[in-house]
Amino acid sequence: MSQNFETIAESKAILNAIPEQWRLNITIPAAEEQRDITGKYIQQFLTASEVEITETDAVGILEHTTTGKWSARDVTEAFCHRAAIAHQLTNCLLDIFIDVALEHADTLDAYYHEHNKPISPLHGLPISLKDQFHVRGAETTMGYVGWIGTFEGQKGTGKERHFESQLVADLRQLGVVFYCKTTVPPSLMSPETHNNIVGYLFNPKNRHLSAGGSSGGEGALLSLRGSPVGMGTDIGGSIRIPSSFNGVYGLRSSTGRLPYERTPNSMDGQESILSVVGPMATTLRSLTFVMKALLSMQPWLHDPMVIELPWRDEQASRLQATIEKLGSSEKLSFGVLRRDDVVFPSPPVRRAIEMVVKALENAGHEYCLKVIEWKPPPHSRGLDIAVEAWMYEGGEDIHNAFGLSGEPVISHISRRYGNKPVEQKRASDIAANNIARRKYRKEYLDYWNSTANLTHSGQPVDAFISPVSPYGGTRPNTYHYVTYSTIINVLDYSSVTFPVTYVDKNVDVADDGYVAANPADQQVFESYDPEIHDGSPVGLQVVGRRLQEEKTLALAKVITDLLV
Amino acid sequence: MSQNFETIAESKAILNAIPEQWRLNITIPAAEEQRDITGKYIQQFLTASEVEITETDAVGILEHTTTGKWSARDVTEAFCHRAAIAHQLTNCLLDIFIDVALEHADTLDAYYHEHNKPISPLHGLPISLKDQFHVRGAETTMGYVGWIGTFEGQKGTGKERHFESQLVADLRQLGVVFYCKTTVPPSLMSPETHNNIVGYLFNPKNRHLSAGGSSGGEGALLSLRGSPVGMGTDIGGSIRIPSSFNGVYGLRSSTGRLPYERTPNSMDGQESILSVVGPMATTLRSLTFVMKALLSMQPWLHDPMVIELPWRDEQASRLQATIEKLGSSEKLSFGVLRRDDVVFPSPPVRRAIEMVVKALENAGHEYCLKVIEWKPPPHSRGLDIAVEAWMYEGGEDIHNAFGLSGEPVISHISRRYGNKPVEQKRASDIAANNIARRKYRKEYLDYWNSTANLTHSGQPVDAFISPVSPYGGTRPNTYHYVTYSTIINVLDYSSVTFPVTYVDKNVDVADDGYVAANPADQQVFESYDPEIHDGSPVGLQVVGRRLQEEKTLALAKVITDLLV
Repeated sequence: MSQNFETIAESKAILNAIPEQWRLNITIPAAEEQRDITGKYIQQFLTASEVEITETDAVGILEHTTTGKWSARDVTEAFCHRAAIAHQLTNCLLDIFIDVALEHADTLDAYYHEHNKPISPLHGLPISLKDQFHVRGAETTMGYVGWIGTFEGQKGTGKERHFESQLVADLRQLGVVFYCKTTVPPSLMSPETHNNIVGYLFNPKNRHLSAGGSSGGEGALLSLRGSPVGMGTDIGGSIRIPSSFNGVYGLRSSTGRLPYERTPNSMDGQESILSVVGPMATTLRSLTFVMKALLSMQPWLHDPMVIELPWRDEQASRLQATIEKLGSSEKLSFGVLRRDDVVFPSPPVRRAIEMVVKALENAGHEYCLKVIEWKPPPHSRGLDIAVEAWMYEGGEDIHNAFGLSGEPVISHISRRYGNKPVEQKRASDIAANNIARRKYRKEYLDYWNSTANLTHSGQPVDAFISPVSPYGGTRPNTYHYVTYSTIINVLDYSSVTFPVTYVDKNVDVADDGYVAANPADQQVFESYDPEIHDGSPVGLQVVGRRLQEEKTLALAKVITDLLV
Repeated sequence: MSQNFETIAESKAILNAIPEQWRLNITIPAAEEQRDITGKYIQQFLTASEVEITETDAVGILEHTTTGKWSARDVTEAFCHRAAIAHQLTNCLLDIFIDVALEHADTLDAYYHEHNKPISPLHGLPISLKDQFHVRGAETTMGYVGWIGTFEGQKGTGKERHFESQLVADLRQLGVVFYCKTTVPPSLMSPETHNNIVGYLFNPKNRHLSAGGSSGGEGALLSLRGSPVGMGTDIGGSIRIPSSFNGVYGLRSSTGRLPYERTPNSMDGQESILSVVGPMATTLRSLTFVMKALLSMQPWLHDPMVIELPWRDEQASRLQATIEKLGSSEKLSFGVLRRDDVVFPSPPVRRAIEMVVKALENAGHEYCLKVIEWKPPPHSRGLDIAVEAWMYEGGEDIHNAFGLSGEPVISHISRRYGNKPVEQKRASDIAANNIARRKYRKEYLDYWNSTANLTHSGQPVDAFISPVSPYGGTRPNTYHYVTYSTIINVLDYSSVTFPVTYVDKNVDVADDGYVAANPADQQVFESYDPEIHDGSPVGLQVVGRRLQEEKTLALAKVITDLLV
């Protein structure tokens, strides 16, 4: 270390990458003055045309860019501007590369001009990237000060600013324009987003609260409409928690559906619970559109971990056929997880669940829906398996990466990993955990199958509805209980997070006199304050079986259509 | 240990399970007198009707049993008799349960009689099981003396002779009749079959040689037509080596295609290179038929490790369409691996390869075939990854299992695992090996894609042809070099083994004066003796991409049709 970590962190100078005319010359109000900086607040810094473009979803944007109605340059510029404002309000970026982006947009426009057709299905769509993906023209920090100016912590590899993650290369080939990298907690192993480069990330919808993590920068940027679609990753809730906290949509796909090739990670080679890639977006249909486009690239030809499983439209159409068979014995059915075996969710989360249940039950006559209580094998057992997997090598990789610059270990990370590595697990410990995971999955599968006895159709439930988080938002350093999201990683199920409501202090009153069942329950109970949480988005997840991304997205549409 | 291991081993008394009238009252001739005991030799102990039934393949049998032409009882009895003879000639069984089988066959006949239709697509098909699968009415030893009279080494679990592997339960539901368990090396981690219960398993086609392993009992029993289809497992060649040595067909399916649930294994929980289940059979079409039937059971609903991937007839029909487009630019193409980077195969294996290449090239005009030299990333690197994975826990599980009875460690096993456990690997060693495996798979994938530059069609090769083994048969304790089969497990590709020829001492002369490149090459060179190996079957494998079982089976048909 020739420099101290603060100097290296400052060298990142993201503001300098923002053109003078886009710099905010205001004093940013405190959260007490301006709790919500989304919507009208951020619009004041943009032109009407920029607002129109940036408040159009990905599918809408593509309707314009693939027909020549909007130029890629105009779209890119609008999102660059809005992202630049978003960053100045929240520190949600770790990089922005406007010139590179505009140059790329120009080549797309030239192509359109010459051929009078789009280059590919995602022609001119800007997509933001969690600062874990490698993209040409930018660097990757994964939240570590020690990665600044390096390739994954190493200098002089020749890969700096050249190397590209497979997912990024595929999106580029589909016509996507890249323009920014969003902030993350170092190591990504946290449900909050805080690093020693740009600090703590607050929720743009309620700046008293966390934006969630680890794909927190994506969540905040999408919330502020500084991006139409972002790519995140999820090993314990890292796509779904920030989606839920920021009122956007997110897909946690099953392992082997999307390419992770050439994307760095923490504790790489730990394969008991694998991190997965997934899109986050401002609308549900954007997730579906991007997934379909990505699978059209046949990612299994470029990433050996991807399963040869093209997009299956028939999963969605089968579902549609079921819905349309009114009065037949075939019905959609859902499980609903009102609480797990340890923690009772906060009042706004409970209300969100009841909103969905009511919407489904009200539609029961028309759509033949049925909702049953979800009583699976204890989720606490599943969590133990994930926690064990995360600790296999005792935090060596993470502490090495913090050590590169000597930066202090962020408190959410040290809560799990301490301040130095602990003893590694042995092969037989890992084997035992793999067996425990297999057995847990088997029990859960058997439970799911057993719901055939409870539905009208005699078929097991199509999916279950669950909180993503027991919290209706969290204040900094208070996100402790991750089981609601992490259990899905243990099971490797498909999960779509969707917005449901906002905390309403008048409705979601605190549970006075609630007697907590255990310390985790007590912590969640105590963390909720209606006054402070008021206005925070609350999302839920609909969880399908493993590798049923198409069906789960279609089910999310059924639900969200009923919520409108 | 209250008893010594010999007493426990003798308690197995497989002969006692064979009815008096089926006992052979002859002195079994030495290998020098009667090298080949298949075909005419074993037929002498059977009635004409038994020979007819047992020399019909699975598809042929089902044509009779599902139309009421043959009773399940007659078919079962014929195979029980032939298997009983086969065992007396070779010690290829670890259990036979004739009464249980006949009773089951009777219920199937009663069903047919009552409903005038078969119970399921595999109605009355006898299937033999490697003594690793659990089946009702029999015990499982996995080759260990210490498992006799126990459930996986434990007494009094209540599961003894009741518990059933998922695969077995699925086959049973499909109408299959079980009647015997075939011999294996203890731990299954050997390419030869030798245990302290029934001794060394010789090749029925050439009794100087090994039947191969670890699904060696299946190979020998199929060779003797004591079974039409057997279920094996493969972590390094354990289906393919005995298939190739015994002149039968075998499928090594990719991980996640068939259920392993409730099936014991060595070093369970080691997930870097997973063992897989697959069928072995006397004809290729039998493999396809059984696979299709097994996938119709939706095994992903009962085994969380199975991928939801129904049988895809379209893979085979696309291939057929390609073949039929004569003269079009679309052509089938194959890679051919004549040798890997370490060992030059024995003369008969080389001749088998040239037979296939010539058949494909001769058909080139008609079928638009092309064969290119396969020059992949060094296989030796891939092997290192597998060997590392097999040693993660230092042999603890295996030595514990040998220790149950105090039996001596079989020499093929001690060659790898010594006579006591060694130090275990740490989490970061395992992670590093997982990364090495991922990188190796990626390089191999890229190489495969790169063959598009060499084919007529501009498409990468459809599959490659490779030896299963560099040996044209092996004498006991001389099977050392496993890379040709194991590399496929490292890559997790689909592979079908098919018979090509027999060693012919007049054609496959030794390479006098061959200068070996390394000790492994020297060992393979020295192990071949035309006089001794004469008559040994030689098979090869056709290797498709991961999870392309349907296509790979269809390609095996293209090849074997041309060989006729």
